[in-house]
Amino acid sequence: MDRPVNRPYLTTRSLTPENQESPVHFLNEYTTRVKYLFRRNHFSYPSYMKIPGSAHISGDVLQPLIFTFKDLLQMPLKEINFTLECAGNGRSFFEPGVYGEQWKNGAVSHGRWRGVPLRILLEYTGLKDSAQEIVFTGADFGKKIGENSKLFARSLPLKKALHEDTMIACIYEGNPVPYKNGGPLRLIVPQWYGMASVKWLTNINVINRQFHGPFQTEDYVYYPANEAEISPFPVTTINIKSIIQKPQDYAILSLGPHYIQGLAWSGKGNIESVQVSTDKGKTWSEADLGRTSNIYAWVPWRYLWDTAEPGEYTIYSRAKDSEGRQQPMTPFWNKKGYGYNAAAKHHIKIENKKA
Amino acid sequence: MDRPVNRPYLTTRSLTPENQESPVHFLNEYTTRVKYLFRRNHFSYPSYMKIPGSAHISGDVLQPLIFTFKDLLQMPLKEINFTLECAGNGRSFFEPGVYGEQWKNGAVSHGRWRGVPLRILLEYTGLKDSAQEIVFTGADFGKKIGENSKLFARSLPLKKALHEDTMIACIYEGNPVPYKNGGPLRLIVPQWYGMASVKWLTNINVINRQFHGPFQTEDYVYYPANEAEISPFPVTTINIKSIIQKPQDYAILSLGPHYIQGLAWSGKGNIESVQVSTDKGKTWSEADLGRTSNIYAWVPWRYLWDTAEPGEYTIYSRAKDSEGRQQPMTPFWNKKGYGYNAAAKHHIKIENKKA
Repeated sequence: MDRPVNRPYLTTRSLTPENQESPVHFLNEYTTRVKYLFRRNHFSYPSYMKIPGSAHISGDVLQPLIFTFKDLLQMPLKEINFTLECAGNGRSFFEPGVYGEQWKNGAVSHGRWRGVPLRILLEYTGLKDSAQEIVFTGADFGKKIGENSKLFARSLPLKKALHEDTMIACIYEGNPVPYKNGGPLRLIVPQWYGMASVKWLTNINVINRQFHGPFQTEDYVYYPANEAEISPFPVTTINIKSIIQKPQDYAILSLGPHYIQGLAWSGKGNIESVQVSTDKGKTWSEADLGRTSNIYAWVPWRYLWDTAEPGEYTIYSRAKDSEGRQQPMTPFWNKKGYGYNAAAKHHIKIENKKA
Repeated sequence: MDRPVNRPYLTTRSLTPENQESPVHFLNEYTTRVKYLFRRNHFSYPSYMKIPGSAHISGDVLQPLIFTFKDLLQMPLKEINFTLECAGNGRSFFEPGVYGEQWKNGAVSHGRWRGVPLRILLEYTGLKDSAQEIVFTGADFGKKIGENSKLFARSLPLKKALHEDTMIACIYEGNPVPYKNGGPLRLIVPQWYGMASVKWLTNINVINRQFHGPFQTEDYVYYPANEAEISPFPVTTINIKSIIQKPQDYAILSLGPHYIQGLAWSGKGNIESVQVSTDKGKTWSEADLGRTSNIYAWVPWRYLWDTAEPGEYTIYSRAKDSEGRQQPMTPFWNKKGYGYNAAAKHHIKIENKKA
């Protein structure tokens, strides 16, 4: 041992249930390794011994189906490299503050998930004409305050459920989906916030009506500050967002050139540009974008900042996507703190050589 | 495996140099285990192969001395259970923000260090009458912005250096002091902020004048907002402080009784009381204090809060010590962000059973 390798750790937000944040500012890798995947739980982990390792498709189908992890491995698997972001990511940045897990930027991950598109599985079962929504239920359960114990369940409209990239994943980065991240079987819904990608999937129920479970009628709803002006609406698509990885907020740097670098992603279209401002948002410059494999991937970006004067700076980054969406300078404040995506803002001090 | 054990991790602030924070809100243990000790570095780790494993006492002594880790083990060892806090702990809470590592509450640890009091070692060397200060130098070095490379070094006045509990530690919690925490030989200065407890100790130089190294004349100095009113003064003794471990800031709790609990410590005297307010500081109640082994130990405390009404609450804790010091409601803002010790403040929402 000469100099030790310094490695980052997950940032612990809570342990009962376990909520831990990825050290996203310290990851240069394209892929988020398993030990750095954020962990987000509503309840205690389901008992490992009680997860069946299979899922049941039933309801308004012509023929029900049970499939196992091994069944999926014998089907043609699709691999999708995508950005998975928790709807509460960035909650701690809202002003005024919002109650709930105080996520900073690290409730997000990026990597290759492999599985079978749901619509392939539904070819085996068929759908009745009455089918309207599909409800996905996980093995995790618990009580919300003042309620009875319930399993975690959410629905998708038929169109999203049948999208070619909505899939039942069984493999993450070449290995079985980790238990703490929803394995053995996890629903994957690219471009939607993470609550849609139901973990420990056990039941897929096709229904002929709208589903009104609490995880889409109470939680994961945008409640604006003034509900008289804007009605509450459900959390679905990931907002366009960039984050700054380096330099860190309140860093002290020497005079001279420094890279400002980070990541950008969107739940709609491609990232078309990331702009950086080093003068509190007065002027903006284009950052260089890295390559991406597909529309769901996050994009690394960087900008060479040649600091000319010592002093205190406020730097920003903001992304634009091919759907014309741009990060706003102020976030859409909402009572439960979802979808934070204001332009990233760091305070930097540049120090000169001492006299 | 049924339900997995969820364990906390260090919180990564930076990796070059390594600065990681203890998950202090999740530790119920009296002792901070090695894997949860905060890591605070000014520079890269010194090369492991180049740390001599011995230290040299020289300068204004009658007879120089070299001693090794093994030499210490053969002397009568003293064990001290004490609170080690970084002077920058809590820096991120200052308003307006202060540049530098954005520590929250976890740049603090508590455990048993074993070593030989410096004054015992100085009995072997003797001190010349001219002796005024003692300079302690570590094996870690690097450049501050715009300066040449320098070893980390700090001095103590003779009185503090000769205090019966100022010691050269070689053992932490029964094992050799971990390399990342300053082993094999680390100076330990109870009641002073951590910068005084020089890591990777290699040289102890008795001098006949004041030492003016940058780590006590530039850094680790309180620079007030208005230097015309208050002159800068050095960072030495740990301020009185309490932190709230549970409930966490912005937690949502159910109606009913909940413990508010935390830790308190001081660099002077004993913790005499911890008071809790659940009404934004209007009224205060006494928390129950846990037992402590000695004046240097932190004190666990808790208060049973029987929430009567749903709503949003601001709760505070503030400690008092036997020297008449009390945590202030607002911190002493200073340009480098040292010694933060304002009353701990958490925002809590109490929810009722749904109708």
